[in-house]
Amino acid sequence: MKKSDRFEQGWNKLLETQGEAGVRTMEYLRETAPDLVKYVIEFPFGDVYTRPGLDLKTREIAAVAALTAMGNAAPQLKAHIQGALNVGCTRQEVIEIIVQMATFAGFPAAVNGMLAAKDVFEKRDKKKQGNR
Amino acid sequence: MKKSDRFEQGWNKLLETQGEAGVRTMEYLRETAPDLVKYVIEFPFGDVYTRPGLDLKTREIAAVAALTAMGNAAPQLKAHIQGALNVGCTRQEVIEIIVQMATFAGFPAAVNGMLAAKDVFEKRDKKKQGNR
Amino acid sequence: MKKSDRFEQGWNKLLETQGEAGVRTMEYLRETAPDLVKYVIEFPFGDVYTRPGLDLKTREIAAVAALTAMGNAAPQLKAHIQGALNVGCTRQEVIEIIVQMATFAGFPAAVNGMLAAKDVFEKRDKKKQGNR
Amino acid sequence: MKKSDRFEQGWNKLLETQGEAGVRTMEYLRETAPDLVKYVIEFPFGDVYTRPGLDLKTREIAAVAALTAMGNAAPQLKAHIQGALNVGCTRQEVIEIIVQMATFAGFPAAVNGMLAAKDVFEKRDKKKQGNR
Amino acid sequence: MKKSDRFEQGWNKLLETQGEAGVRTMEYLRETAPDLVKYVIEFPFGDVYTRPGLDLKTREIAAVAALTAMGNAAPQLKAHIQGALNVGCTRQEVIEIIVQMATFAGFPAAVNGMLAAKDVFEKRDKKKQGNR
Amino acid sequence: MKKSDRFEQGWNKLLETQGEAGVRTMEYLRETAPDLVKYVIEFPFGDVYTRPGLDLKTREIAAVAALTAMGNAAPQLKAHIQGALNVGCTRQEVIEIIVQMATFAGFPAAVNGMLAAKDVFEKRDKKKQGNR
Repeated sequence: MKKSDRFEQGWNKLLETQGEAGVRTMEYLRETAPDLVKYVIEFPFGDVYTRPGLDLKTREIAAVAALTAMGNAAPQLKAHIQGALNVGCTRQEVIEIIVQMATFAGFPAAVNGMLAAKDVFEKRDKKKQGNR
Repeated sequence: MKKSDRFEQGWNKLLETQGEAGVRTMEYLRETAPDLVKYVIEFPFGDVYTRPGLDLKTREIAAVAALTAMGNAAPQLKAHIQGALNVGCTRQEVIEIIVQMATFAGFPAAVNGMLAAKDVFEKRDKKKQGNR
Repeated sequence: MKKSDRFEQGWNKLLETQGEAGVRTMEYLRETAPDLVKYVIEFPFGDVYTRPGLDLKTREIAAVAALTAMGNAAPQLKAHIQGALNVGCTRQEVIEIIVQMATFAGFPAAVNGMLAAKDVFEKRDKKKQGNR
Repeated sequence: MKKSDRFEQGWNKLLETQGEAGVRTMEYLRETAPDLVKYVIEFPFGDVYTRPGLDLKTREIAAVAALTAMGNAAPQLKAHIQGALNVGCTRQEVIEIIVQMATFAGFPAAVNGMLAAKDVFEKRDKKKQGNR
Repeated sequence: MKKSDRFEQGWNKLLETQGEAGVRTMEYLRETAPDLVKYVIEFPFGDVYTRPGLDLKTREIAAVAALTAMGNAAPQLKAHIQGALNVGCTRQEVIEIIVQMATFAGFPAAVNGMLAAKDVFEKRDKKKQGNR
Repeated sequence: MKKSDRFEQGWNKLLETQGEAGVRTMEYLRETAPDLVKYVIEFPFGDVYTRPGLDLKTREIAAVAALTAMGNAAPQLKAHIQGALNVGCTRQEVIEIIVQMATFAGFPAAVNGMLAAKDVFEKRDKKKQGNR
C-alpha cells in the first residue's frame, strides 16, 4: 500500500507527540483494523495536528482538557499527557489543566484525570532512572 | 452578607473573562439560588481562574476545548468563547480548537461547537456596529 | 388493546408524580410510537416507581440528581422537578440537590439544572396566580 | 481551491443521504469554518460512508442508534433520521431503533430521540403535501 | 417465583444472542440484585429484542454502534460484539460499525471499541482452538 | 500551611462519610496535586456536604444516583456507596437507587453500578469477618 502524504505527516506527528507508546497502540490494532489505524494517522495526526493555527503545546493542552472532562478514555488521556510533556508542557501545567476541569466536569473527572497524570509521571521517572 | 476575598477576586475574574453577559446569568439565578451563584464566583472564578500556573488565555482555550467535547452545555460554551476572545484569543484560534475537538469527540460535537462560535462572532459584530 | 396491570399502575404513578404535564408528553408521542409510550408507563412508572424499597420523595430526589448530572435531558429534568415538588419535596430541597451536583458533574450542569428549576418554579407560581 | 476526490465523493454521499438539508448546514458554516466543512465532507462522508463493508441503510441505522444514545446532538440526529429514510429505511424501522435505545441509554434519550423522529416525519409530510 | 412469559422469552433471547457469557453475568448478580436481573431479562431481552420490527442482526449492529459511541460500558459492548457475531454478523461488519463511530463520537471511542472487538475476537479464536 | 475552617470541616465530613478509604485516596494524590486535594476537601466536603438543607443520607443517595447514571467514575461511585452505608442507608436502599437508574441511564449503567455495589458489599463482609 502506497502511503499518502497525509499518512507520512501524521506518522511523524504521532511520533513527535506520543512517542513509542503511541506507535505501539497503532501496531497493536493494525492487524485487526488496518483502516482505523490509517484514519487515526491521516485525520487527527495528519490533517489536524499539522495545522499551523495553534502550536503543538496548545493543542496538547486542549487535548488533556477535553479528555479529562469527557472522563471515559483513560488510555488516550494518558497518551496526550505524555504528548503534552513531550512537546514542552511542564508537569505543573498539566496539573493546572486537570484541576481546572473540576469546575467544568466535576471532581470525579478531575481526580481520575489526576490519577492518570500521576501514573504517567511515575512511568517517566522510572524510565529516566532506568536510562541512567 | 459580607463578601469573602474569594468572592471579590472571583467577581473580578468573571467580569474580566465573560464581561456583562456572565454577570447577567449570575443576576438571573441570584434570587432562586444565591449559594450556587456564590459558589460559581468563589470556586471556579475565585479559586481556580486566579491561580498563577496558567495564563487566562490558556485557561479559556482549555475551557472551549472541554465544553465543545462535552457537547451538552451550549450556554457555558458560548460564555467561554466570549471569554477566550476577551482575554486575547483570536477568532481563528477559537475555530482551531473546535476543529480539533472533532478528533476527540466526533463531528457532531465540533459542528455544534462551531455553530456556537458563529453565533458569538455575529453577536460581537452587531454590537461593534451598534457602538459606531 | 387490553391494558396490563403494569400499565394501569404505571399510569397512576405517572399522574401522581408528574401530573398532567407528564400525561401530555405521552399523548404527544402516542400516535408516532405507541409502544414506547407503553414501555415508559409499564417499566419506569409501573415496575420501578411502584417498588416499596424507597419512598416517592427519595426516588424523585434521585431522579433530579441523575438528570442534572447527565445534563442532556432538560425536558425530563423539568418533569422530575415537578414530580419532586408534587410528592412533597420543598423548592429548597430541589435547589440543594442541584447545588450538590456541581461537585459531581461540574458547574455548567448545576447552572443548567438550576435554570430548569427556576423555570418550573415560575410556571407553578403563574399557575397558582391563575387559579386564584 | 481544487477539490480532492475525497471531497467530491463525500459531497455526493452527503447529498445522497441527507439531501438539501445537509448541504444547507455545510453552507451555513462555510464562511466561518471552511476547513471544518471540508473535513466533514472528506472524512465521514468521503472516507467512511463510501466504504463498501456495510450498505448505506445499515450505516444510517447505526448513526440513528449512536446519536439517540449519545443524546446531545439533536440536529445531527434529525439529519441522520432524514438520511435513514432517504436510503430506504421505513419510519417503523427508525422507530424500532429508537425504542431499542431505551435499553442502552435510558428512557429520556429514547423519548427525546422519538420527539426528533416525530419532528422529521411531520416535516416530510408537510413537504409532500406542499409538492402536490 | 413463577416466571412470567416475558422472562421466559427474554431468557431465550439472552441465550440466543449473548450465549453462556451473558448468562454468567446474570448469575453473578442474581443474589445481590435479583430484581435487576429480572428486569434485564424481561424488558430489554423479553420485550424489546423479541419485537418483530428489526431482525436480530440489525439490533446487534445498533447495539454495537450505541455502546461504542457511549464509550463507558466496555463489558456490555463486548457482550454485544459477541451477540453480533452469534446472530450472523461477520467480524468485518463489526469492525466497520466501530470505524464509523469515529465520525460520531471521536477516535478515542472508536479505538477503545476496537480494542474491545480485538479482545472478543481473540477469545473466540482461543475457544475454537480449545474445542478442536 | 494553616488549614482553613472549610478544610477542617470538610476533612471531618470526608471521614464521616467515606472513612479511611476516602482519606487514602486523598493521601495518594497529595504529593502530586496538593491543591486538588485541598479543593476536594474544601468545596464538596467542606462547603456542600456540611450544608443543612439535606441530611447526609439523602446526599449520599443523590450521589449514588448521579454517579451510577454518569457511568464513568467507578472509584467515586464505590466511595459513595460506602458513604451511603456509613451514614445509615441499607444495602437494599442502595440497590433500589441503582435499579431506578436503569430507567434514566439504561441497563449497562445500572448493571455496572450494581457490580460496584456488590464489590463494596463483599469488601465490607470480609472486613467484618476479619474483625471478629
